[in-house]
Amino acid sequence: MKKSQSFFTQDKPASFRYYKPDRKVLGKKMADHLRFAVCYWHSFVWPGLDPFGGDTFQRPWHAAGGDGMKQAEHKADIAFELFRLTQAPYFTFHDRDIAPEGATLRESNRNVRKIGEVFEKKMRKSGMKLLWGTANLFSHRRYMSGAATNPDPEVFAYAAAQVKNVLEMTHELKGENYVLWGGREGYETLLNTDVGRELDQLGKFLNLVVEHKHKIGFKGLILIEPKPAEPTKHQYDYDVATVYGFLRRYGLEKEVKVNIEQNHALLAGHTFEHEIALAYALGIFGSIDMNRGDEQSGWDTDQFPNNLPQMALAMYHIIKGGGFTSGGLNFDAKVRRQSIDPDDLVIAHAEAMDLCARALLIAEKMIDDGKLGQAVDARYAGWKGKMGRDILAGKMSLAKLAAHVEKTDLEPQPRSGGQERLEGLVNRYI
Amino acid sequence: MKKSQSFFTQDKPASFRYYKPDRKVLGKKMADHLRFAVCYWHSFVWPGLDPFGGDTFQRPWHAAGGDGMKQAEHKADIAFELFRLTQAPYFTFHDRDIAPEGATLRESNRNVRKIGEVFEKKMRKSGMKLLWGTANLFSHRRYMSGAATNPDPEVFAYAAAQVKNVLEMTHELKGENYVLWGGREGYETLLNTDVGRELDQLGKFLNLVVEHKHKIGFKGLILIEPKPAEPTKHQYDYDVATVYGFLRRYGLEKEVKVNIEQNHALLAGHTFEHEIALAYALGIFGSIDMNRGDEQSGWDTDQFPNNLPQMALAMYHIIKGGGFTSGGLNFDAKVRRQSIDPDDLVIAHAEAMDLCARALLIAEKMIDDGKLGQAVDARYAGWKGKMGRDILAGKMSLAKLAAHVEKTDLEPQPRSGGQERLEGLVNRYI
Amino acid sequence: MKKSQSFFTQDKPASFRYYKPDRKVLGKKMADHLRFAVCYWHSFVWPGLDPFGGDTFQRPWHAAGGDGMKQAEHKADIAFELFRLTQAPYFTFHDRDIAPEGATLRESNRNVRKIGEVFEKKMRKSGMKLLWGTANLFSHRRYMSGAATNPDPEVFAYAAAQVKNVLEMTHELKGENYVLWGGREGYETLLNTDVGRELDQLGKFLNLVVEHKHKIGFKGLILIEPKPAEPTKHQYDYDVATVYGFLRRYGLEKEVKVNIEQNHALLAGHTFEHEIALAYALGIFGSIDMNRGDEQSGWDTDQFPNNLPQMALAMYHIIKGGGFTSGGLNFDAKVRRQSIDPDDLVIAHAEAMDLCARALLIAEKMIDDGKLGQAVDARYAGWKGKMGRDILAGKMSLAKLAAHVEKTDLEPQPRSGGQERLEGLVNRYI
Amino acid sequence: MKKSQSFFTQDKPASFRYYKPDRKVLGKKMADHLRFAVCYWHSFVWPGLDPFGGDTFQRPWHAAGGDGMKQAEHKADIAFELFRLTQAPYFTFHDRDIAPEGATLRESNRNVRKIGEVFEKKMRKSGMKLLWGTANLFSHRRYMSGAATNPDPEVFAYAAAQVKNVLEMTHELKGENYVLWGGREGYETLLNTDVGRELDQLGKFLNLVVEHKHKIGFKGLILIEPKPAEPTKHQYDYDVATVYGFLRRYGLEKEVKVNIEQNHALLAGHTFEHEIALAYALGIFGSIDMNRGDEQSGWDTDQFPNNLPQMALAMYHIIKGGGFTSGGLNFDAKVRRQSIDPDDLVIAHAEAMDLCARALLIAEKMIDDGKLGQAVDARYAGWKGKMGRDILAGKMSLAKLAAHVEKTDLEPQPRSGGQERLEGLVNRYI
Ligand SMILES: [Co+2]
Ligand SMILES: [Co+2]
Ligand SMILES: [Co+2]
Ligand SMILES: [Co+2]
Ligand SMILES: [Co+2]
Ligand SMILES: [Co+2]
Ligand SMILES: [Co+2]
Ligand SMILES: [Co+2]
Repeated sequence: MKKSQSFFTQDKPASFRYYKPDRKVLGKKMADHLRFAVCYWHSFVWPGLDPFGGDTFQRPWHAAGGDGMKQAEHKADIAFELFRLTQAPYFTFHDRDIAPEGATLRESNRNVRKIGEVFEKKMRKSGMKLLWGTANLFSHRRYMSGAATNPDPEVFAYAAAQVKNVLEMTHELKGENYVLWGGREGYETLLNTDVGRELDQLGKFLNLVVEHKHKIGFKGLILIEPKPAEPTKHQYDYDVATVYGFLRRYGLEKEVKVNIEQNHALLAGHTFEHEIALAYALGIFGSIDMNRGDEQSGWDTDQFPNNLPQMALAMYHIIKGGGFTSGGLNFDAKVRRQSIDPDDLVIAHAEAMDLCARALLIAEKMIDDGKLGQAVDARYAGWKGKMGRDILAGKMSLAKLAAHVEKTDLEPQPRSGGQERLEGLVNRYI
Repeated sequence: MKKSQSFFTQDKPASFRYYKPDRKVLGKKMADHLRFAVCYWHSFVWPGLDPFGGDTFQRPWHAAGGDGMKQAEHKADIAFELFRLTQAPYFTFHDRDIAPEGATLRESNRNVRKIGEVFEKKMRKSGMKLLWGTANLFSHRRYMSGAATNPDPEVFAYAAAQVKNVLEMTHELKGENYVLWGGREGYETLLNTDVGRELDQLGKFLNLVVEHKHKIGFKGLILIEPKPAEPTKHQYDYDVATVYGFLRRYGLEKEVKVNIEQNHALLAGHTFEHEIALAYALGIFGSIDMNRGDEQSGWDTDQFPNNLPQMALAMYHIIKGGGFTSGGLNFDAKVRRQSIDPDDLVIAHAEAMDLCARALLIAEKMIDDGKLGQAVDARYAGWKGKMGRDILAGKMSLAKLAAHVEKTDLEPQPRSGGQERLEGLVNRYI
Repeated sequence: MKKSQSFFTQDKPASFRYYKPDRKVLGKKMADHLRFAVCYWHSFVWPGLDPFGGDTFQRPWHAAGGDGMKQAEHKADIAFELFRLTQAPYFTFHDRDIAPEGATLRESNRNVRKIGEVFEKKMRKSGMKLLWGTANLFSHRRYMSGAATNPDPEVFAYAAAQVKNVLEMTHELKGENYVLWGGREGYETLLNTDVGRELDQLGKFLNLVVEHKHKIGFKGLILIEPKPAEPTKHQYDYDVATVYGFLRRYGLEKEVKVNIEQNHALLAGHTFEHEIALAYALGIFGSIDMNRGDEQSGWDTDQFPNNLPQMALAMYHIIKGGGFTSGGLNFDAKVRRQSIDPDDLVIAHAEAMDLCARALLIAEKMIDDGKLGQAVDARYAGWKGKMGRDILAGKMSLAKLAAHVEKTDLEPQPRSGGQERLEGLVNRYI
Repeated sequence: MKKSQSFFTQDKPASFRYYKPDRKVLGKKMADHLRFAVCYWHSFVWPGLDPFGGDTFQRPWHAAGGDGMKQAEHKADIAFELFRLTQAPYFTFHDRDIAPEGATLRESNRNVRKIGEVFEKKMRKSGMKLLWGTANLFSHRRYMSGAATNPDPEVFAYAAAQVKNVLEMTHELKGENYVLWGGREGYETLLNTDVGRELDQLGKFLNLVVEHKHKIGFKGLILIEPKPAEPTKHQYDYDVATVYGFLRRYGLEKEVKVNIEQNHALLAGHTFEHEIALAYALGIFGSIDMNRGDEQSGWDTDQFPNNLPQMALAMYHIIKGGGFTSGGLNFDAKVRRQSIDPDDLVIAHAEAMDLCARALLIAEKMIDDGKLGQAVDARYAGWKGKMGRDILAGKMSLAKLAAHVEKTDLEPQPRSGGQERLEGLVNRYI
């Protein structure tokens, strides 16, 4: 394990100013609120490529001509070393992140399971846990026109076989959730696309996954990760509201929840807290990909979170909604292409974890103080009156309501929304 | 009627190069395909205001200090004169567009109904028809925090009373649909908002409208017009997919359809044809607001349509989806603030109608030629094979699919999506 | 002054947690760093209108049928009362903000100057100062197609006359700058526009303003406020870089500087700190309009600033650039349309001032600690070596540089940009 | 040449409906108006990669483990075969597109020059011409933090040596222009960046290039290609207006012009025709990259042009501005990632060329008919009157203009901008 130890300069776990795993916050340990996960994809797979430039990181396990499985083991060594240095209790992965593709799917699956065995040992030894696994159904050219939504049913079959393998492996590794991100489930041009048919294919696919989950006794959540676009021009899992409609259409709203990413929310025209609050309201909140998009960039930058007030509001909505059950806070974030020092990986995660902890402490203050919640309750207080209750209870028709307005010559008086007052209040907690 | 005759320079109806109402297209009259409507709001109500400037149009019926009802009649004269000049067979209105607000809702409603009587006579005489009516639940300060989603149930009641009046009047005028646009049904800040509660209020409201529709025997469609934002930061009827989920949530997916606007599609991050195709796929296509957003502007510019290839694709998807039933093509568009000549109104409508007709003729060629549709069908042909059929019929599980892949060492071969070829094909029809 | 005293609930000036005018920060009083200004336009003129709704504020001085000059005086009373309550030392105004338009420009100017006299007395009594004045060349329909860039030279003349009046009055009131915002200096459609000609008109106009400034002995800065669009589709003063090129083209780069607004930066695709840093680099930094755009809205929301880390970075770049000279920090911000209580005006300003003070204290820490500046210096240290100096001194040609590369088989080694480390560092100061 | 002949299915040059190279348009051959170029980068270098997926094209010259120079020659064979099939008279390339990077820059340059010799023979034989060459200063990790703007002057030197080689080779191949695109000349974060210093470095670099151009007697234009962002968060050559200011700052406005790309215009918030018209107005129009961005995607999609009305307006502004001198129309466009058939390359180019020819014919009608130009002239006619001329001639001061307004109680009367009328007029030419 020498290789991994010399990869990072530092040997001692990161130290934190705010993050104390055992510190009690609102009756629960900080670690149990935050459930941090490091993701394989961004930290160990992405080599610093972008659409106009090549590998800047030159990780040893990416060296051309190497033995794929040896490189995969090397990568795993470094990954667990990073987990140790950051002290995040969870990790997440795609099948293709952890092991090389073989000549056939059988061989690819074998490779994946072999690394799964490596993981099992390392997890037992280190105490690391798996937040979720997922199958990469988007990088290989076979998926260029979709996985479940491919015009070729053989690709559907191939994707199904791949998901089966990762779902079962996730179950065996005691993974707490299983995620599907439909990066190619969408279209590049409507000219060659039958939207209705593709949605049906996707609905069918998801139903098969749910069926299999129950068959093998997997208790974790099945999660869809919404994203509006990129790589595809339009993706069917556009945002939380779209996914909700899709789940209802295919009878899945009790089986499947969402994994919400900040950057994806932004690309869909929403704030992170909007997507979180909406998912709770619709009963489909599952987990989050904590990262950050650049407001000036029109693509998924997947940066480490760094805006404290925004993070505090996201955390507030999560706590208010009841917190995570099996979900967690996955750093679906990559160090910038110019951050080529291995230590940048440690720094980025440690700074992000500390800032999330700080955001949690702010959310705690918001909850404890109660003024924010009270302001909202007070604003809707009228709905607790007789007419409000009658309306919601279905006792009033349009005709009855109109009669009431006419009889009383009702003229409702608007009240200040107090937005600046509330924004000032929030800043007092920062 | 002298006033109206002198308002526009021209007295003879607009002439067209492409629009011939009686011309047969795909077995139906052009007029019956297009079902053009002129909208009151943009052409007779908006005075050329923008956030940084005042009235530029100085329409006589907006003169300060005038008698509101007289001005409303004058406006109606001019409106019907524009209808005559453009030869559009339909019109659309909000209650507040056509008559002044009174001291109480009773008085306001009376004003509206009086103009309704004026309309009835004019409609009988001219043969004009009403595509849809709608209630303005967004301009008055009482609605600043929402109508159905207002924190005050009295505002809900007031809105209900207003909708009842317009729905009944629409029914009496033989209007073919009733539209709801939720410009204030959303929020400015999550800090003072309970999203789940507001969605429930909105679901309740819509159910009351549907109930009343049936009660009075109105046979037209109830339509929601999606828009993501503006005036409100976030609106609940974000886009077609969001509205679909909302309708499912509140049991309305068989009762309510959508009125899709090009500019709103754009603001939500979609093309117009995407929203149309999706609405057909989900079974909720109703009607369209034909206009155009400026791709460089981040707000609703509501310009007259003018990009022929884009319009042709929209028309193609409408025809392919089955065309309009009770819906139609409403010009929810306003002449630019600098287009201050009354004749600009005639020109803008006539040019737009002619361009829509031209787009329809292009769509006809696309349909008749059949190559576009064939290309799509051919692309999915694999799904007609045994495995494809078995998958969709629910005969295949994840396990069976995986067994198939492993047994055959399946490696699906991708095929070109042929996008450039199809785009070239489309341009041959333009 | 009874009216104003009863307009706001509170009578005692706002209290602050961070803003102490006399507190020394980096050797200067806090008040002298921040130079806060309240703007007339947003707080006393805008009635809560938006493109879909009317007046929500119902300020008494907007009541229909009132005596315009009396209402203007009433408005001035309330304005100075707000200034007193917030303790901001400066204010800013457009001519049309403060006095009603008359039948002719002479009358309009007279009205403006009469209120100028009212201001003078109030300023003397209260100690309030004028940060800048400006002429409204965008609201009236005569300006619908531009002021200086109007196709009609008479509008150019009218605008010139209006600017002359406000520039002279600003001088008399000891205003410290004069601002031009070209809201209509742009185009709605290229189809009717001659861009080159309009730029020449604008260059000429600005030269006349500069000439007149010198003629009357006004020592303040002439400032252009960049904005990319809205109300106009495209505005010539797009952003700082565009204004710089314009100033060079018309020989004005030593005479005119920029007033940078956060929301306008955002609309142009930039961060606020980018525009500030660039303006300092180009030598044209003048003043700022401190506000905030909504990242999800595509228009100018002009909200009160509330994101502390972003404000701290803006403040850091201002301090690092040398701070304000005659410029200042103008709250070009309006309370939301739903914030209808007069007290919301006091709260919004006081919260914003306090947050700006807090941002300044963070910037002070950044400067004092020095690590951010050192990191930048260290990154460019190579340029202090011989080759770096020779290149910048013009001693190296392409040929010489190529010879050097070839002789040494040079292969430069990239170094980490350390972005996450620096972002973490910034968060330590928050 | 067998390889190339079997790469594409078709052997006969593409046929066109509109493009006839020798057809006279406005007194010049169509080919001389359009000056089409095929670009190496997109058609032969990009393998179908995107941020979430790998090579889909599997071009034989990209096969792993091959001999780099042999593959480069193979690629050249296919390239010239595509040139033959499309009949575009020009091509464009980056040094790294055409030949593999060696162990040192000397070796890399040697590789490039060897392929240059291959090109020379092929060009002589085929009559193909070089529109422009350029150096790839962005893909290799050494350029990750910029080329001229790198914090390390050795990278500046390396870039200089690379440009020298390509500039000289372009000269030898009788290339008609030389292009610089600053994909890494910008920043990822202001936190580690000194904007002023980097601009100075860039200004110096460009001056060296211009100096060398004159030294070697290259008569073509030096062109900067503006782009606001991507790959970098912010790029210094943001748009035409920004580049203009930059050129003025470093004394280059007479030496350097712009190569304008449609997709980059869009990303910067502009229309293509805006950038073209502005470049002509500022005297820096050089050449264009004809392609198309997806209005719903926030990144550079570089699609083949396909919207005829938009292309016609671009062509109109080019013709009106005087047409190309040494510039041309480069298809900086790639077939979609799913368009994996080699023939898709032929189809895409041929369809685009035909559509450009069609756009040119529309522009010809616009020019010949003259109504568009007349409408613009008529709109500004007032500026030909005495006051207009006096103003532009500098004979009027603010004071004189104000005196004129007051004396005459001037009240300018606005006239309709006639936008819808002009848009209708444009559609008559389509
Ligand atoms: Co994610
Ligand atoms: Co992402
Ligand atoms: Co609409
Ligand atoms: Co609209
Ligand atoms: Co401003
Ligand atoms: Co603004
Ligand atoms: Co380009
Ligand atoms: Co591009």
